[in-house]
Amino acid sequence: MQAVYNIAEICAQHGITDVVLSPGSRSAPLTLAFARHPALTVRVVPDERAAAFIGLGIAQAQRRAVALVCTSGTAGLNYAPAVAEAFFQHIPLVIFTADRPPEWIDQLDGQTIRQRNLYGAHAKGEFEFPVDTSHADAKWHSARIVNEAINLAQAAPAGPAQVNVPLREPFYPKAGEEIRYEKDVKVTREPSLTTEVSKAAISEFTQQLLSTNRVLVVAGQHASDEKLNQALLAFAAIYGVTVVADTIGNVNGIGSFLVGKHDVFLAGLGKEQKEALRPDLLITFGQSLISKSLKLYLREAAPQQHWHIQASGAVADTFRSLTSIIRSEPAAFFAGLAVESVSVEMNGASNWQQAETAAQSFLKDFFSVPNPPFNEFSAFHRTLAQLPENTALHLANSMAVRYANILGIPEDKEIEVFANRGTSGIDGCNSTAVGAALAQPNRPVVLLTGDVAFFYDRNAFWHNYPTPNLRVVLFNNHGGGIFRLIDGPRQQPELEEFFETRQLLTAENTARDFNLRYFPVSTFDELEAALPVFFAAETGAAILEIFTDSKTNAAFFEEYRAAVKQAFS
Amino acid sequence: MQAVYNIAEICAQHGITDVVLSPGSRSAPLTLAFARHPALTVRVVPDERAAAFIGLGIAQAQRRAVALVCTSGTAGLNYAPAVAEAFFQHIPLVIFTADRPPEWIDQLDGQTIRQRNLYGAHAKGEFEFPVDTSHADAKWHSARIVNEAINLAQAAPAGPAQVNVPLREPFYPKAGEEIRYEKDVKVTREPSLTTEVSKAAISEFTQQLLSTNRVLVVAGQHASDEKLNQALLAFAAIYGVTVVADTIGNVNGIGSFLVGKHDVFLAGLGKEQKEALRPDLLITFGQSLISKSLKLYLREAAPQQHWHIQASGAVADTFRSLTSIIRSEPAAFFAGLAVESVSVEMNGASNWQQAETAAQSFLKDFFSVPNPPFNEFSAFHRTLAQLPENTALHLANSMAVRYANILGIPEDKEIEVFANRGTSGIDGCNSTAVGAALAQPNRPVVLLTGDVAFFYDRNAFWHNYPTPNLRVVLFNNHGGGIFRLIDGPRQQPELEEFFETRQLLTAENTARDFNLRYFPVSTFDELEAALPVFFAAETGAAILEIFTDSKTNAAFFEEYRAAVKQAFS
Repeated sequence: MQAVYNIAEICAQHGITDVVLSPGSRSAPLTLAFARHPALTVRVVPDERAAAFIGLGIAQAQRRAVALVCTSGTAGLNYAPAVAEAFFQHIPLVIFTADRPPEWIDQLDGQTIRQRNLYGAHAKGEFEFPVDTSHADAKWHSARIVNEAINLAQAAPAGPAQVNVPLREPFYPKAGEEIRYEKDVKVTREPSLTTEVSKAAISEFTQQLLSTNRVLVVAGQHASDEKLNQALLAFAAIYGVTVVADTIGNVNGIGSFLVGKHDVFLAGLGKEQKEALRPDLLITFGQSLISKSLKLYLREAAPQQHWHIQASGAVADTFRSLTSIIRSEPAAFFAGLAVESVSVEMNGASNWQQAETAAQSFLKDFFSVPNPPFNEFSAFHRTLAQLPENTALHLANSMAVRYANILGIPEDKEIEVFANRGTSGIDGCNSTAVGAALAQPNRPVVLLTGDVAFFYDRNAFWHNYPTPNLRVVLFNNHGGGIFRLIDGPRQQPELEEFFETRQLLTAENTARDFNLRYFPVSTFDELEAALPVFFAAETGAAILEIFTDSKTNAAFFEEYRAAVKQAFS
Repeated sequence: MQAVYNIAEICAQHGITDVVLSPGSRSAPLTLAFARHPALTVRVVPDERAAAFIGLGIAQAQRRAVALVCTSGTAGLNYAPAVAEAFFQHIPLVIFTADRPPEWIDQLDGQTIRQRNLYGAHAKGEFEFPVDTSHADAKWHSARIVNEAINLAQAAPAGPAQVNVPLREPFYPKAGEEIRYEKDVKVTREPSLTTEVSKAAISEFTQQLLSTNRVLVVAGQHASDEKLNQALLAFAAIYGVTVVADTIGNVNGIGSFLVGKHDVFLAGLGKEQKEALRPDLLITFGQSLISKSLKLYLREAAPQQHWHIQASGAVADTFRSLTSIIRSEPAAFFAGLAVESVSVEMNGASNWQQAETAAQSFLKDFFSVPNPPFNEFSAFHRTLAQLPENTALHLANSMAVRYANILGIPEDKEIEVFANRGTSGIDGCNSTAVGAALAQPNRPVVLLTGDVAFFYDRNAFWHNYPTPNLRVVLFNNHGGGIFRLIDGPRQQPELEEFFETRQLLTAENTARDFNLRYFPVSTFDELEAALPVFFAAETGAAILEIFTDSKTNAAFFEEYRAAVKQAFS
């Protein structure tokens, strides 16, 4: 088993610090190897679906790979949703699936499935650990592939890699026998390099920029990055361009160059006004957009050129107008182009900024109308305003992330925004936030979620690790409220039974089960009274459950939509 | 969308009656097609992992295919554990995964993953529905592959098949617009044929049997089958052979030819006594065995010949001695060989029957010892004795299925036994039982389960369909008690934290959440008082939670093991 024990040592030498493990018999040698390693923090989570999303949440927060360890059989299949999210959100996970040895596959033994390439198109790679490492070549092979898997998972664009580890009995050392880690184990490093765009290329891009009338920058999902924000500010200031960013773009500190209320005004503007916003050159970076309005607008707008800035990996043609793929880190690209000597005034930017200002006023006015009915959208607005400083804000799919993107995040509180927008699933939103809370114990982690996503993933809390910094704000309208807000399902007789799917749970019993403080509210007064207590650091892990009525929510959101049309058209 | 609506019609014409659907936007056309079809019962279950196992439970009970319908993205990945179980347990599932059209894959749109061949090696086949069915050839293609998928899922050995359905907007008919089903839609049938073994083959097998001294029949997992039981009885009576069957073999009504207490005596017998049981010819049918003792014994015994009777599909060499694969239905094979004119007395059978009788007496004596501490094994024994007549008994992995196999199921109550032994996972045991309860409302469905399996799959109850016939007996020892019972983990310092993994939940809040009657017990008196009320038909859906202490359980099970050694060696 020395080669198996060395897996933990190689992980540790690569700087992996956190392991999420689900108990099992076949995986025992891996469990012992990781649990006994002094440099690794190992947490046990029984539901593998939750375990994998908790690992993803930790990796997302730490910005380095997390190891997942499970036993043979369907255990590894329960990782699949998180693996797909990690693949599309570019989060490094190194997955060790214990397996029976190859001769016992398909022989009707328990907990035995076909584990080779278990994640198909959603893993960056898959490796088979040698079943017998007594030959020196096999031992070299075993260490080599663990290095390969870690390097592959971490190389940009990061993602998940599987190492399938077939294990023969006996699994356990004799009682009292020590596990030894070979400190001189094979380690092959692949550090991530920062690159610079060549002067020649910069000069060419600058010429192209200067010969273009209207330039617009759009940020997709991106981790908070101070260097990138500075580069964007410098670039925007010199060229006078607007940067449109969803909340998950985490673009901050670029003042009036930032447009974030596009979800509001794009839904209202008429054809001519939209024409005034049309870019000739669209420059994008990052991953997905939340804003459907923005996506549809850019597809219609069809800019003559669309440059996407991405150092490596496949590039999506999200707006059907992609003309150039620029292989650079976004920060390096924008910093490189931000040469002081250039000074131009682009057209069009002021139109975006005017729309932004109008949208800000509109929202302020809209939510100042006295005596609204108690509803989700207003409750969301008030909750956002009271988020603690330095919050890691997790937005669940499906309505939470949309509301937040319409309303915007307070700009002066250094809030970082996360959402599982790689696959936009509801299946691991709680667990991802739990992972974030475990990884950053000194920072508030707030999850804003709806009832379907919340109850789907209750096993996120089913483990023995306290998360005193976690706050869950649960907007409970007893069903998939989104279906009542969008055209199509809400006109169908099947709305309630087959789309919205009424569900009757409240979080009271869940809070009781997992020792979470529980704050139920169903009026604005109760909400305003609860928020400061709920967010106070001394409160500990807690759920604020905001009860609203799905029909009232739909009616109020309809009012909002009508007001937008009136204000912007 | 006519081709999409026709999917429901083709399913109905193939005799599919039940559909389990999880809500979504992309899947709306499929939802409407299935929900509006008059011949289909459609149930909505929000957690796709639970939904797929509920579908599996329905299919297992009805012995015909169930359709699953989900939206795009990770929804379908949450089906994967149930799909693997269906694959290895040979249960027909037809899975319709809604998808974005191919041009939008990998373009950073929401809920978009790579859905082609989503289940890899664990689906019998995968079909891509044409994205545009306006051409007549494409419409023929669309209907053809739905037929192919249904036929493939149902053809022996049955299993899961995926139809990926890419859908472009608009998804919804106009308000009030009717959905039309084309009654003359293409239907290609592939009825399952019964076959007979030729007289020549029978004559040859008979000769081989007659020239063999010791013959043993071993039944793996098999659905209850009256014809098979009759054939086995006739065969055993004529050749005087023993049939060894785990509880999940569902072998009944063959009197003293049946051996079911092998888990007891094989764990105790010495080398010589085992030699007296050794078969020269082993005849097996069915799927996996629960009994590890039996598997290990047969591997050691190494019979000269091992015939496995299986009409089609890959055959496992579970005991490493497979010599013949006989392509016949087991019932046809045994009935064909049971020719009255043959009459022989085999050797060895009486040794098995003596061991069986001894094991029965042993168990009776062992559980008659006065004043045992309250423990899981004894509580299990008492619960089994009081199961209602005609129960569909679901045994969860991991200890429940083992205890039941040691203790045996009451023989005179027409109890049918189910367990997810295709993959032996704990991930869908509740949901499978819920599916069984929905499919057979007039029959008691009893699930015996442990706490880890139970809490893992609580979302089994998260839907709006009553299951008044469902009874869940939850043996709660607050952790993975199995690890304290098996050598290896129980000697490790990591036992409690990394193997057993203490968990503190009780089912009280779960029962409250889902309106299940709740019976907590922690003494034999409480258990005996609760059982008749709990099992009474008028009680409705209920949980009986039996609290035991993991260390007491381990100590008592150790006593049992010691007693076995003493009694049989």
